[in-house]
Amino acid sequence: MTIAVYPASFDPITNGHLDVAQRAARLFDTLILAVADRPNHKTPLFSTEERIAMMREAVAHLPNVRVDAFRTLAVEYADQQQATVLVRGLRASTDFEHEFQMAHINHRLAADIETVCLMADQQYTFLSSSAVKEIAAYGGDVTNLVPPHVAAALRRVYDQRKEATR
Amino acid sequence: MTIAVYPASFDPITNGHLDVAQRAARLFDTLILAVADRPNHKTPLFSTEERIAMMREAVAHLPNVRVDAFRTLAVEYADQQQATVLVRGLRASTDFEHEFQMAHINHRLAADIETVCLMADQQYTFLSSSAVKEIAAYGGDVTNLVPPHVAAALRRVYDQRKEATR
Amino acid sequence: MTIAVYPASFDPITNGHLDVAQRAARLFDTLILAVADRPNHKTPLFSTEERIAMMREAVAHLPNVRVDAFRTLAVEYADQQQATVLVRGLRASTDFEHEFQMAHINHRLAADIETVCLMADQQYTFLSSSAVKEIAAYGGDVTNLVPPHVAAALRRVYDQRKEATR
Amino acid sequence: MTIAVYPASFDPITNGHLDVAQRAARLFDTLILAVADRPNHKTPLFSTEERIAMMREAVAHLPNVRVDAFRTLAVEYADQQQATVLVRGLRASTDFEHEFQMAHINHRLAADIETVCLMADQQYTFLSSSAVKEIAAYGGDVTNLVPPHVAAALRRVYDQRKEATR
Amino acid sequence: MTIAVYPASFDPITNGHLDVAQRAARLFDTLILAVADRPNHKTPLFSTEERIAMMREAVAHLPNVRVDAFRTLAVEYADQQQATVLVRGLRASTDFEHEFQMAHINHRLAADIETVCLMADQQYTFLSSSAVKEIAAYGGDVTNLVPPHVAAALRRVYDQRKEATR
Amino acid sequence: MTIAVYPASFDPITNGHLDVAQRAARLFDTLILAVADRPNHKTPLFSTEERIAMMREAVAHLPNVRVDAFRTLAVEYADQQQATVLVRGLRASTDFEHEFQMAHINHRLAADIETVCLMADQQYTFLSSSAVKEIAAYGGDVTNLVPPHVAAALRRVYDQRKEATR
Repeated sequence: MTIAVYPASFDPITNGHLDVAQRAARLFDTLILAVADRPNHKTPLFSTEERIAMMREAVAHLPNVRVDAFRTLAVEYADQQQATVLVRGLRASTDFEHEFQMAHINHRLAADIETVCLMADQQYTFLSSSAVKEIAAYGGDVTNLVPPHVAAALRRVYDQRKEATR
Repeated sequence: MTIAVYPASFDPITNGHLDVAQRAARLFDTLILAVADRPNHKTPLFSTEERIAMMREAVAHLPNVRVDAFRTLAVEYADQQQATVLVRGLRASTDFEHEFQMAHINHRLAADIETVCLMADQQYTFLSSSAVKEIAAYGGDVTNLVPPHVAAALRRVYDQRKEATR
Repeated sequence: MTIAVYPASFDPITNGHLDVAQRAARLFDTLILAVADRPNHKTPLFSTEERIAMMREAVAHLPNVRVDAFRTLAVEYADQQQATVLVRGLRASTDFEHEFQMAHINHRLAADIETVCLMADQQYTFLSSSAVKEIAAYGGDVTNLVPPHVAAALRRVYDQRKEATR
Repeated sequence: MTIAVYPASFDPITNGHLDVAQRAARLFDTLILAVADRPNHKTPLFSTEERIAMMREAVAHLPNVRVDAFRTLAVEYADQQQATVLVRGLRASTDFEHEFQMAHINHRLAADIETVCLMADQQYTFLSSSAVKEIAAYGGDVTNLVPPHVAAALRRVYDQRKEATR
Repeated sequence: MTIAVYPASFDPITNGHLDVAQRAARLFDTLILAVADRPNHKTPLFSTEERIAMMREAVAHLPNVRVDAFRTLAVEYADQQQATVLVRGLRASTDFEHEFQMAHINHRLAADIETVCLMADQQYTFLSSSAVKEIAAYGGDVTNLVPPHVAAALRRVYDQRKEATR
Repeated sequence: MTIAVYPASFDPITNGHLDVAQRAARLFDTLILAVADRPNHKTPLFSTEERIAMMREAVAHLPNVRVDAFRTLAVEYADQQQATVLVRGLRASTDFEHEFQMAHINHRLAADIETVCLMADQQYTFLSSSAVKEIAAYGGDVTNLVPPHVAAALRRVYDQRKEATR
């Protein structure tokens, strides 16, 4: 039985993340979507709890997928979960170099955990959480980029901010 | 049971290919190393039969790996073999764009076959069959770059060529 | 009145080329799709005449677009046509470097001709004439990648080749 | 009549921006240099008003160019201005991926606005506002990188800062 | 006699930096490792003094290498030291573009100072100070990535931080 | 005394090669421009003898530079010449990956020979021998891209070819 961990910030989860998760869920027996919960990093838009809730709703239809958070290195978390695979979604070349660096460093830290890269569908090639937040912040329509409940959450957050700066 | 196909020219198989094959063999139930046998392409250094023989010797210690040749599109071959996974080894960014193109085109041709990219160990990052041939052609030492029997075959070929051009 | 030249091999024209041509036709008064007719280069799959005929059929619905061939440098041809714009389609980063080189060299040769890069729709990001030929050569389906009459022409060519090698 | 918008931070405008603006002004009937005025982003070196003033002085000799600021998404602003073209300057490959992402996302948001990429002259290939600020901050000479009045403004700002930290 | 300056943040020095320093020390008569001491930049993990002390210990075995700090532009510092060479370590392609930009800008500022790029050994290709800090922050083992005394210093810093957040 | 080898095809030598050679000649005691004489590779435009003659004329003003040909691996040739440095000119990122691969493979073959990369002046960033030949083949002006006697040789060759195809 192969357990795979897909670690990311998921701030928030996009249709690109979902596409990678669905592909990975077909390949491995269990898939854990693992939110990086990093108190020392720059403040995310959504709290760890909010991100987990949105992800759970987004993957509710995938029986072998569960959602969790981690505060350690991704490989250490994977090891604790008896996972042998780290899943990463690849988009464009600049992504690639970063993933390469991480894969090689992770390999040094835990040689028995394999990094597996999947490529999201072409329509998600240029999609990222930051792009989604940028668009939503200026009132743009993110309907086709994230699940409906995430689009609603983004609208809520940015409407509140606008109120606050009035 | 997941069957995976790792298609390439393998002209000849290098330690980088072997590293990827060993990683893939741990992830999937069956792995098929599939040599592209393309009569219309530029003549390979080794015939399809020679390449297969060298590969069989190189993966003899991996029980769930077998070696085969294919003359169709990789996805079509995978489909014939009931495989649901295409394995690709990633090295550097220029590789990546080509793999991306192939993955997306393959996805259009056969949506149920997933392309899975693995990253060879860092020591193989800059290793390719062409680099190995270039070095061997000028009498350089390829001992650490390919299995011993492949190094011997390369020496044989280039010694014969030198004889011939005398 | 701005005349633009879109020079390429178009061997054969793909839906990606067509997408770029349609965008350019909206931006400039006249657009010339110019086939590079290079007798010293490696033999194309389709003759210059065949390529022109397929392109004419493909752009028949675009009133301000015409198709032509050229044997000189692209900037020289543009100059002969009183064009002030060279149109190029950008796909991925490796494309980009080549385009950059050409744009800068063209700028040295003819400072008053501007290179304008358009980005094909995301679904064509990884589409190229060579990929199309590769797929068609192995009997793959290219229906969504090229116009119907081009798909038919590709099928004809590769069926004949198969006959010939029997 | 084609109206084009060239949106950027212009913090401050460089000779590379100016080169792209001059090229675009020859291609389109009206060109609007549009300063991104983003209150939530990290504080720019120059205020929106200062950036606009420096840009107006820099493009005073170009009759069909005007300078403006915008607070929405670039495509939304373009739409308000009846513009059908977004102009972007390309320098090196990393630029390119970012531009690609933006072009594709903008295309989703407003399919009738075309992103047109121009390549600045080779001498500006490695020039950016951040590089200019870095050099000026350490007292380096930016005379050939920005218009004279921008060089003077940079000197003024960094001299004041030095005073302040004494 | 050729004096070379190798400027970087060295926050902290890694085995990759050391590898480049050792290569450069063989090529040039004197090599100065120069720590960028930038009060206006984001706070480094280690103070300039701590970074210098760790570097001195790391290069104690290299007789023609000394360690210093600089607060100006790198080329200006090199000029003050009568150096004619700036040494840079290259890793992957994204590095490259940044180095290219710096090399060209430095060339404009001081045409008689040559930028020389060396490539660290393959095992350091994906190693950076930030990666090291990321790993150490989450309690990962950095023994093979930095000299022993640097590994100890990292452990000390992050243990203190953990204490503090309890 | 440091001897450096700058190996390339030099088919023909361009102003970009010359710029790198001049920079390297200032850094090292002796610089050897070494033409790759590869009988099995695709036929160069100029014979090894012609390339050497053109290079000798181009570097006649550089006292510590000599021109030679080699038929082995570059590192082997360097070793025979007691050289400890291989010089390479870097232009754009795609170059870089290839150079990286070669540098790492050379390092495996001869650990005591250091690859040193220099960056040609920005005006040569997009200049290559193939671009020069492409332009000359179509009658374009290459005056600013190569030394005058090389421009003359290119004109001669392509005029003869034109005669021949009449």
